[in-house]
Amino acid sequence: MDKPKLFTVGPVWVHPDVLKEMSHQMFSHRGKDYMDLHIEVIKKLKKFMQTGDDIYLSTSSSTGIMEASVRNCVEKNVLNLICGAFGTRFSEVCTSNGRIAKKVEVPWGKANTAEKLDEALAKSDAEAVTVVHNETSTGVMNPLKEIASVVKKYDVLFLVDVVSSMGGTEIDVDGLGIDVCFFGTQKCMGVPPGLTVVSVSEKALEKAKEIKDRGYYFDFWVMKKYSEKNNTPVTPPIPQMFALSKALDLMFEEGLDNRFKRHKKVAERVREGIKDLGFGVFPDEKYASPTLTCIDTKGVDPKSILQPMKEKGFTLASGYGKIKDQTFRIGNMGWITLEDVNELLENLEDVMKRIQ
Amino acid sequence: MDKPKLFTVGPVWVHPDVLKEMSHQMFSHRGKDYMDLHIEVIKKLKKFMQTGDDIYLSTSSSTGIMEASVRNCVEKNVLNLICGAFGTRFSEVCTSNGRIAKKVEVPWGKANTAEKLDEALAKSDAEAVTVVHNETSTGVMNPLKEIASVVKKYDVLFLVDVVSSMGGTEIDVDGLGIDVCFFGTQKCMGVPPGLTVVSVSEKALEKAKEIKDRGYYFDFWVMKKYSEKNNTPVTPPIPQMFALSKALDLMFEEGLDNRFKRHKKVAERVREGIKDLGFGVFPDEKYASPTLTCIDTKGVDPKSILQPMKEKGFTLASGYGKIKDQTFRIGNMGWITLEDVNELLENLEDVMKRIQ
Repeated sequence: MDKPKLFTVGPVWVHPDVLKEMSHQMFSHRGKDYMDLHIEVIKKLKKFMQTGDDIYLSTSSSTGIMEASVRNCVEKNVLNLICGAFGTRFSEVCTSNGRIAKKVEVPWGKANTAEKLDEALAKSDAEAVTVVHNETSTGVMNPLKEIASVVKKYDVLFLVDVVSSMGGTEIDVDGLGIDVCFFGTQKCMGVPPGLTVVSVSEKALEKAKEIKDRGYYFDFWVMKKYSEKNNTPVTPPIPQMFALSKALDLMFEEGLDNRFKRHKKVAERVREGIKDLGFGVFPDEKYASPTLTCIDTKGVDPKSILQPMKEKGFTLASGYGKIKDQTFRIGNMGWITLEDVNELLENLEDVMKRIQ
Repeated sequence: MDKPKLFTVGPVWVHPDVLKEMSHQMFSHRGKDYMDLHIEVIKKLKKFMQTGDDIYLSTSSSTGIMEASVRNCVEKNVLNLICGAFGTRFSEVCTSNGRIAKKVEVPWGKANTAEKLDEALAKSDAEAVTVVHNETSTGVMNPLKEIASVVKKYDVLFLVDVVSSMGGTEIDVDGLGIDVCFFGTQKCMGVPPGLTVVSVSEKALEKAKEIKDRGYYFDFWVMKKYSEKNNTPVTPPIPQMFALSKALDLMFEEGLDNRFKRHKKVAERVREGIKDLGFGVFPDEKYASPTLTCIDTKGVDPKSILQPMKEKGFTLASGYGKIKDQTFRIGNMGWITLEDVNELLENLEDVMKRIQ
C-alpha cells in the first residue's frame, strides 16, 4: 500500500480503497440511487455506534453539530466540562448562541473527573452537560464511563463530542446514555473531511421541541423529517458517504475489537518510544489517549524537530493553542500500525541525535 | 468522454478531470499543503465572481450559508422576495432564527419584480432584502439587475442566493452591489456537493458586528479571522476544494462568456423542443432560466414520462413541491451541450409517441 508517513490528528491518511470511493460519478440526492446509499450507510453506522437512536448525516464539520447540539438541547443553562482547546470551543459555541455556560475546568493535561462534575451538577440548573471525550489539543481521553454514571443521576441531557475517539476506541452510545453523540469522518474513521455523523436520543428530540429558535440548518426535527424518508434536508456530501460506507466495511473486516486494541497498543508504543528519547508525555498518563499522543519536548523547540522530520517524509502535528511552543503531537488514528510508529520512532531518534 | 445522460438540477454530471481531483491523499488542514490550495482556490474565485469582497469557504450546503446570511445581517426585520420553493425556504430560515420576515410573493412561475420590491421597501423597516436569483423549483431567473437598482436606493443589505445560477450566467457581484452572495459547488460549477462559497461585503461585516447571537459555525467574523491566515475555522472538505480548483480552470479555458452563451442556447433549444412535443414552459418565458427548464406536462402524469426516460438511460428531474404532479425539469447545468439535449429531445419524442 502506498502509505505516506502521515501522523496527523485529522484529516489523516486515507486507505486507497476508501479514497477510490470518492470519485463516483454524481446523481441527484432526491432519487433512488441516493436513497439506497443512505440506507446502507445508516445501517452500518447503527451497528458501529451500538445505538438504536436516530442517526443523522450533516453536511458540516463536527463543530457544526456541536452548535446543533446546543441550539436543540439547551434553552438557557449548560454546563461545560473543559480540559483543553476543544472543550473551550464547545463553551464558546454555547455562549455565542446566547446560552449561559458554566465551566467546570481542569488544567490542560488533566482529565475531567466524575467527582467535580457531581459537585457542579448538585448546585446547578443546567439543562445539559457537554464533554469532549478525547481532547485533541492535550491528548487526554476523559473517563466517559465514570462521567456518564454521574450524568445519569441528574435530569440533564448528555452532549458528547467523540470527534477524535469514535473509531479508535469503544463507545457504547446507548449504554452510556449519550443523548447527542457526534464525530466527523476525517479522524479515526479514516475518511476525507466534509461529513459529520450524529446520533440523537428521543429525550434530546423532546427537549428540542421546547426550544423556539433552533434555526433551520441544524434543527434536529428537520433532519428527522427527511431522515424518515431516507434522505437529508440539504444536499449531502455524497462522495464522503461512499467513502464512509467503504471505511465501515474495512473496520468490520478488521474487527472492531482488534481495531481498538491496535490503537491502544500503538499509542502505548509511541509513549514508550518518546520517553526513551528523553521527552515527556504531556497529559496525565492515566488518561493518555489511545488515538494521539501529546509530547512535552522538555524545552526543545518543537519546530526544530518537526521540520527535519518533515524533510525525512514524516508529517507530525504541531502543538495546539497555548501549548504550541512546548509540545508536538503524534496521531495514530485510522490505519497506523506498530510497524509504522516503530519506523517513525527510529527516524525521530535520528533527528534528535543530529539536534543534540 | 464517458458522459452519462444526466439532466438533473444538482448534483449534476461531473467532468472526469474534476472527478479525478476528488481522490487526492489527505493532509492536515493546518499545514502548508492546505494553505497553498486555499490561496489558489480563493484567487480563482475572486476572478470568477468579479469581486473584491472577502470570499469564505464553508463546510456546508448552500442552505447553511443562507442561514449565515440571516444570522449575520438581520437583527430583527427582513424582506423576502419569493417566487418559488427556495424563496420560501429563505423566509423559513429567517423565521426559524427568530427574525420577522415580510414576504413579497408572486405566484409560482412569475418573477419577482423591481416595482413590487420598491413599493415594499418604501414602507418597510427591513435591514436586508433576500432573493433567490434562479428559482430551481419553477425555472424562473429573477431580473437581478433591476432588483439590484432598487435595493441600492435604500439602506438595506442585499443577500442573494445564486445557488443554481453562478457558473451558468454572468453575475457581477460588485457591480450589482451584492452584500452576501453564495452558491454550492454541485450545480453549474459541476463539482460534487459538500462545499459552499460566499462573498461578504464590508457593509455586511459591519452589520454583523452589531448582532450578538451570530453563533459560531456561521459567524462571518470567525470565518474572516481564519481566512486572513489562508485557512478556515473548521475542517474544510479538501477533496471538493481540489475539484473546484480544477473546475474553475476548465471554465476559464472554455471562456466564461462562451460558457454563459452555451447555457443560454442549450436552454432555448430545450424550450423549443418541448413545445414542439406539445408541452408548455411552466414559467413566464420572459424570465425562463438559462440553467434549467421547468416543463408543464399539460395534464400528462410526469412519472409516465420520467420512468421510460430513465429506462432509456436519461435522468431528468421531477417537479418540486406543489407543482410536482404537473411538471418535470430538465437541467442543463455544467457541461451539457446542444448535442446532448438534441439526443435527449429525440428520445423524449420517442417516449411521447409510445405514451400517446
